[in-house]
Amino acid sequence: MKAEIFSVGTEILLGEILDTNAKYIATELANIGIDVFYKTSVGDNEKRLLDAIDIAYKRADIIISTGGLGPTDDDLTKETFAKYFNKNLVTDKESLENLKSYYKNDYMPKSNLKQVDMPEGSIALVNENGTASGCIIQENNKIAVILPGPPKECIPMFEKQVKPILQQYTSKVLVSKNLKLCGIGESNACEIIKDLMLSSQNPTIAPYAGNNEVRFRVTASGKTKEEAKELLKPTVEKLYNIFNEYIYGEDEQTLQGAVVDKLIKNNMTISTAESCTGGLLASNIIDVPSASKVFLNGVISYSNESKVYELNVWKEDLEKYGAVSEQVAIQMAEGIREKSNTTIGISTTGIAGPTGETEDKPVGLVYIAISIKGKETVCKKLMLQGDRLKIREKTVNICFSNLLKLI
Amino acid sequence: MKAEIFSVGTEILLGEILDTNAKYIATELANIGIDVFYKTSVGDNEKRLLDAIDIAYKRADIIISTGGLGPTDDDLTKETFAKYFNKNLVTDKESLENLKSYYKNDYMPKSNLKQVDMPEGSIALVNENGTASGCIIQENNKIAVILPGPPKECIPMFEKQVKPILQQYTSKVLVSKNLKLCGIGESNACEIIKDLMLSSQNPTIAPYAGNNEVRFRVTASGKTKEEAKELLKPTVEKLYNIFNEYIYGEDEQTLQGAVVDKLIKNNMTISTAESCTGGLLASNIIDVPSASKVFLNGVISYSNESKVYELNVWKEDLEKYGAVSEQVAIQMAEGIREKSNTTIGISTTGIAGPTGETEDKPVGLVYIAISIKGKETVCKKLMLQGDRLKIREKTVNICFSNLLKLI
Repeated sequence: MKAEIFSVGTEILLGEILDTNAKYIATELANIGIDVFYKTSVGDNEKRLLDAIDIAYKRADIIISTGGLGPTDDDLTKETFAKYFNKNLVTDKESLENLKSYYKNDYMPKSNLKQVDMPEGSIALVNENGTASGCIIQENNKIAVILPGPPKECIPMFEKQVKPILQQYTSKVLVSKNLKLCGIGESNACEIIKDLMLSSQNPTIAPYAGNNEVRFRVTASGKTKEEAKELLKPTVEKLYNIFNEYIYGEDEQTLQGAVVDKLIKNNMTISTAESCTGGLLASNIIDVPSASKVFLNGVISYSNESKVYELNVWKEDLEKYGAVSEQVAIQMAEGIREKSNTTIGISTTGIAGPTGETEDKPVGLVYIAISIKGKETVCKKLMLQGDRLKIREKTVNICFSNLLKLI
Repeated sequence: MKAEIFSVGTEILLGEILDTNAKYIATELANIGIDVFYKTSVGDNEKRLLDAIDIAYKRADIIISTGGLGPTDDDLTKETFAKYFNKNLVTDKESLENLKSYYKNDYMPKSNLKQVDMPEGSIALVNENGTASGCIIQENNKIAVILPGPPKECIPMFEKQVKPILQQYTSKVLVSKNLKLCGIGESNACEIIKDLMLSSQNPTIAPYAGNNEVRFRVTASGKTKEEAKELLKPTVEKLYNIFNEYIYGEDEQTLQGAVVDKLIKNNMTISTAESCTGGLLASNIIDVPSASKVFLNGVISYSNESKVYELNVWKEDLEKYGAVSEQVAIQMAEGIREKSNTTIGISTTGIAGPTGETEDKPVGLVYIAISIKGKETVCKKLMLQGDRLKIREKTVNICFSNLLKLI
């Protein structure tokens, strides 16, 4: 059973709106095990829509279309599918009642009436959140699911009325697990499990690269959710064995979320002293709702003076080694930890560019230091590529991955 | 001249990512007057991609494709187009240099080398922000523009390298100017210029809503760039007259950029004291490359204790009014300004959620305060909607728009 997703509307072809419906429907179809090999966007134009329908039914059994159910003459999705299937349009009683109740306190423009005309013999999908009903046409082993464009109308209609019907057509259930890695590059990680990836058919393994992190999505298909889950296990286990030191979490877990969770678990608190990252490190920690349990205080020490009065960095060392140096990074981390009375102090200092580089200190040179109570402070020298924001973002992610290893 | 947009990648068909590239490219093509009648998404599969290319060239002259240029065997967009056009792949020297410089401090996995192999006779598009070069193939009146998938790589490549080439194929020149407003809502702003928007055909006026800001894009079409620019002027002037107090900049200018520019111009310095925004305010300022001229110091004061020892907030007031209060916001702003010896001190304190609300202090309650040397400190009470990050982002933007008015 193969489906093709249609997004109908000139506004999509002009780039005026982002096609969020198509993403939603694709996710849902993947979850119930219906394959999607193509998505097509086409304008509000009868000839071009008819051509696209024709092409789609050569390669798929179901077309799920969104958009073009409005009250104006421009909107012609339903009319065009009716023409393709050679059906008349007839008023659907329940949809008409729904339309009337929608306008019960208002004048109803006559043009809205076309929104409740349905192709003869189709299943009408009454719209709980708008005036345009959708419909399902089934004929000659071809199915058309026709949905309204606004996500507020389309998504509940799909969820409540369409999904239960589509589920009858599939015997597969797909279950996925995402393993999230940091501290290793995508190509490097893929190289290590090249053979495993090639030989894995069910479950499959797909790699995705993020901001200084890699995600492997393992997807199994079974007759039931339980069967699919069982099928996942051995491959997930293998990946854990191979990438144990790099995997920081699964699925919705974020890198900063993993850090905060581990700090809470270990009963630790943290403070930050940032120069080049300028608050981005703290901001990412505080993004995690439970951050208030572990994050107490932070300083963004941008001027040399403030490194002295905020963090007790030695003025002499600032002059001798410069603000971007191992010595200063270490003193910043220790300074913030002592001042804030936390278990951990973490610091960043570097040259994020585009200006500010010197002969021996190029853009991308960053030092990070982590001071843990009772342990020797660890400092890392980084050479990062990218623009100002990229260098700052990479620095933050490297802080998190190093922190995870140390606590 | 008709174009078709291709998005290649199984992750799009599985609904894992939102296709923002396609929207961007559609907008840009509309701007330079190239028609788009279809968009197609297809997975990383040679046979299906070949079929889609075949269909597309029956209805369009140009295919612009994004995605599938990664280093793994999964990524086969360039290879498949090369096959379609019957071209060998050969290493592009400049791309190879770019790749080597990208990995100059790191081990380069061998698989990356395929990212700089280009179809013979094509124009290579060197990637300034990644390792995969794109390319343009021109043959038998068919053009293929092949771009990488990550928006950070795809968009600058299209903007700088592809657009100038595509512009040769169209006789229209479109010129746009974006006017950026803060302190007024989208529907409000649109209502004010409703008639002007309806009556404007060349130039057109299109509104876009952003994060607590509004952008009006004015676009004129002419035979030459100069003609289009002249056509823009009267409408832009009208908008300046109407929205003078709300317009903070044009085109690439950001709200934080406007703040930093104005601070530099007025010879002012700034420091930040953040609670709920947790470093996001400072981080946004420091995002501006010239920020080091004005930003000296910041504190992320998350615990009550640190509000006392870092910012001199009165312990009695913290107990009496709570950390989220006008009194504490004002003391934070004044405390950081005095400590950092800056012209301006700015503070945030609020409840970003999802937890932490009390009976009289709901999620979304935020106080911001701005203390300017020699002036009375200004405090604003905000009631914001959205999730944790949204509330924090809105707070930061409101800080900036208030700052702009006060300096």
